[in-house]
Amino acid sequence: MLPGVGVFGTGSTARVLVPLLRGEGFEVHALWGRSEEEASSLAQELGILFHTSQSDDVLLHPDVDLVCIYISPPLTRQIAVKALGIGKNVVCEKAATAVDAFKMVTAAQYYPQLLSIVGNALRFLPAFVAMRQLLAEGYVGELQVCDARVYGPSLLDQSYGWTCEELMGGGGLHTVGSTLVDLLSHLTGARAVRVHGLLRTFVGQNGAIHGIRCVTSDDFSFFQMLMGGSASGRGVGTGTGSGVCCTVTLNFNMPGAFVHEVMVVGSAGRLIARGTELYGQRNGGKGEELLLGDSGGTGQEVKDVPLPHLRGLGSMVTALKDAFQAQEERRLWAQGPVAMASTFEDGLYVQTVVEAVKRSSRSGEWESVEVMTQEPDPNQNLCEVLLINKN
Amino acid sequence: MLPGVGVFGTGSTARVLVPLLRGEGFEVHALWGRSEEEASSLAQELGILFHTSQSDDVLLHPDVDLVCIYISPPLTRQIAVKALGIGKNVVCEKAATAVDAFKMVTAAQYYPQLLSIVGNALRFLPAFVAMRQLLAEGYVGELQVCDARVYGPSLLDQSYGWTCEELMGGGGLHTVGSTLVDLLSHLTGARAVRVHGLLRTFVGQNGAIHGIRCVTSDDFSFFQMLMGGSASGRGVGTGTGSGVCCTVTLNFNMPGAFVHEVMVVGSAGRLIARGTELYGQRNGGKGEELLLGDSGGTGQEVKDVPLPHLRGLGSMVTALKDAFQAQEERRLWAQGPVAMASTFEDGLYVQTVVEAVKRSSRSGEWESVEVMTQEPDPNQNLCEVLLINKN
Repeated sequence: MLPGVGVFGTGSTARVLVPLLRGEGFEVHALWGRSEEEASSLAQELGILFHTSQSDDVLLHPDVDLVCIYISPPLTRQIAVKALGIGKNVVCEKAATAVDAFKMVTAAQYYPQLLSIVGNALRFLPAFVAMRQLLAEGYVGELQVCDARVYGPSLLDQSYGWTCEELMGGGGLHTVGSTLVDLLSHLTGARAVRVHGLLRTFVGQNGAIHGIRCVTSDDFSFFQMLMGGSASGRGVGTGTGSGVCCTVTLNFNMPGAFVHEVMVVGSAGRLIARGTELYGQRNGGKGEELLLGDSGGTGQEVKDVPLPHLRGLGSMVTALKDAFQAQEERRLWAQGPVAMASTFEDGLYVQTVVEAVKRSSRSGEWESVEVMTQEPDPNQNLCEVLLINKN
Repeated sequence: MLPGVGVFGTGSTARVLVPLLRGEGFEVHALWGRSEEEASSLAQELGILFHTSQSDDVLLHPDVDLVCIYISPPLTRQIAVKALGIGKNVVCEKAATAVDAFKMVTAAQYYPQLLSIVGNALRFLPAFVAMRQLLAEGYVGELQVCDARVYGPSLLDQSYGWTCEELMGGGGLHTVGSTLVDLLSHLTGARAVRVHGLLRTFVGQNGAIHGIRCVTSDDFSFFQMLMGGSASGRGVGTGTGSGVCCTVTLNFNMPGAFVHEVMVVGSAGRLIARGTELYGQRNGGKGEELLLGDSGGTGQEVKDVPLPHLRGLGSMVTALKDAFQAQEERRLWAQGPVAMASTFEDGLYVQTVVEAVKRSSRSGEWESVEVMTQEPDPNQNLCEVLLINKN
């Protein structure tokens, strides 16, 4: 039985998500927007009966059992944690900081019976599902190098907002890089141990952002990840990706272009996902072969939602349907169909890598990726003083 | 009047160079090979009347006024410097070390009337000539990022040799990376100030190289260059490329592929050379436009000589003809046609960058590029001891 859905967000992803949910038979009962106007406008456009700018109105809505959170990163943690506390299943986007991500992990661990996934749509894209499968089957032999690049037009909003602010989770690294960090870990079954990166903001002001306002988020970045031990539990075998070098190049100063390419190279061949299509070549083979074309499927490219994300989102919604529909109770779900999803733990890892890359860009050095195991105490200095006085 | 040519080397470049030289009207009078057999075999194949394994036999040959040196890097300095000393014009490939490159600079400065160029064919490739011109004309606006990538099959020789040895100038960085370092400096009119890199040798042994022998040269590398002040003299304007980030990815574990792509991105558009063709897109334009196709021209892809190098080599030989033919005396040459060539000073800069990248790969840190201004004294320690004793 499919749960009723409440959607947080009025951006481009929320806009394409609602029709996708409905297409799979979900009912969308409530929409939250940052302002009454934004909520009302999109609710009207999409024909959603209830809209609000009060998060509790959605979280406490009796018909809402699954909450989809596609809002600015600094608000994500608060709503996701609250939703779990109220007993709702959660699909959300990345948080703003590793501390936020850690709090989300804690909440998810506290309510293991609830669905809690970071909705990185790329994991569900058929090209990457097939790539992961072929990697596990040894198509490329021993994996050596992953090379991902995404080029596209500016990620900035029309007006000044979180997309302009590095500290609010804006920028190519946080927005797009994080999906690739997650994907590469998913594909290789390994996690980054050390990273090195360089971030740049080439466009500091534009027609919409000027005066005293200035963009601090990156529009160009490249980073390298040296992969180590296997990702917890769900990796492709153990240690497959150990010693692998991953390089990622992101450039969002390329109006009119959209390039999304992920290549994995091994001792026996290589696999390349260009956009939504998968190509492969084995060493000694005749040439590159198309392994998986784009099925076309629902919808064309939507403004601000690149095709790989759109298609992946479609597959993810299908997986959600599969997870829920065989269940008798509308809050229950089956593990299988969403087993490939990114967990909140994965989200914490990704956030940790993103922050290590930013640190590396400032220090100029390789930085270790050390995933938080306990929440940093905001009063640590105070505690130390108290401890000293006690003795 | 065209000078008679002596060719050093029996490798794939020497093999394609001889027909190109003859095509422009040069006569090739002598061929040098490392061994009598290699020299004899290629001389017979190409119909060169005189061959030898003694370098002096070519350098002192009365009909040879232009020496083309395409041999293993550790031998280049010795022959190039000697050729200049005997009064011959020199076109050569890169040296093995910065110290060698510095000695070549000293020799070139001592004989300014002689031609002395490091034959980086990419500078002459029409696609890059056009790219440099368009950059100077402001096609891309303010330059931000250069991104170069070359993927191809292994660079190792059939048998164990210098290509396997990092210290002898083997590896993708030294062989191919150096041509890109030179090209990017030529295109941007700027030089790398700081570099960061990562080198890997994924294939340490193969069917031909095994037992106690092991490959030490890199087959994968990824490096970044932060560009600073303008290149001496010949740059495109001054400071055009200052602050530009260059990223270079080289992967030679890709049998059956050859990808050669150089992209420059600026505030107003971008230019992309794919193989020998040049594409461009201006921001707000309708889409990518083909700016320069491959004219086809002489010959198809030759084994081990990628098309951009082959075509560039052809253009370079044409430029050499133009430099020499209007002259009355066969050792004289005109500056104009070869003004875009890489000088020995450029060669020293390139070698310095290559060594800084290697250093960075070992240290994990950003390394400064400091071009040598005086030869390091091999007896420095001894001198210091003497100095101490004197006091």
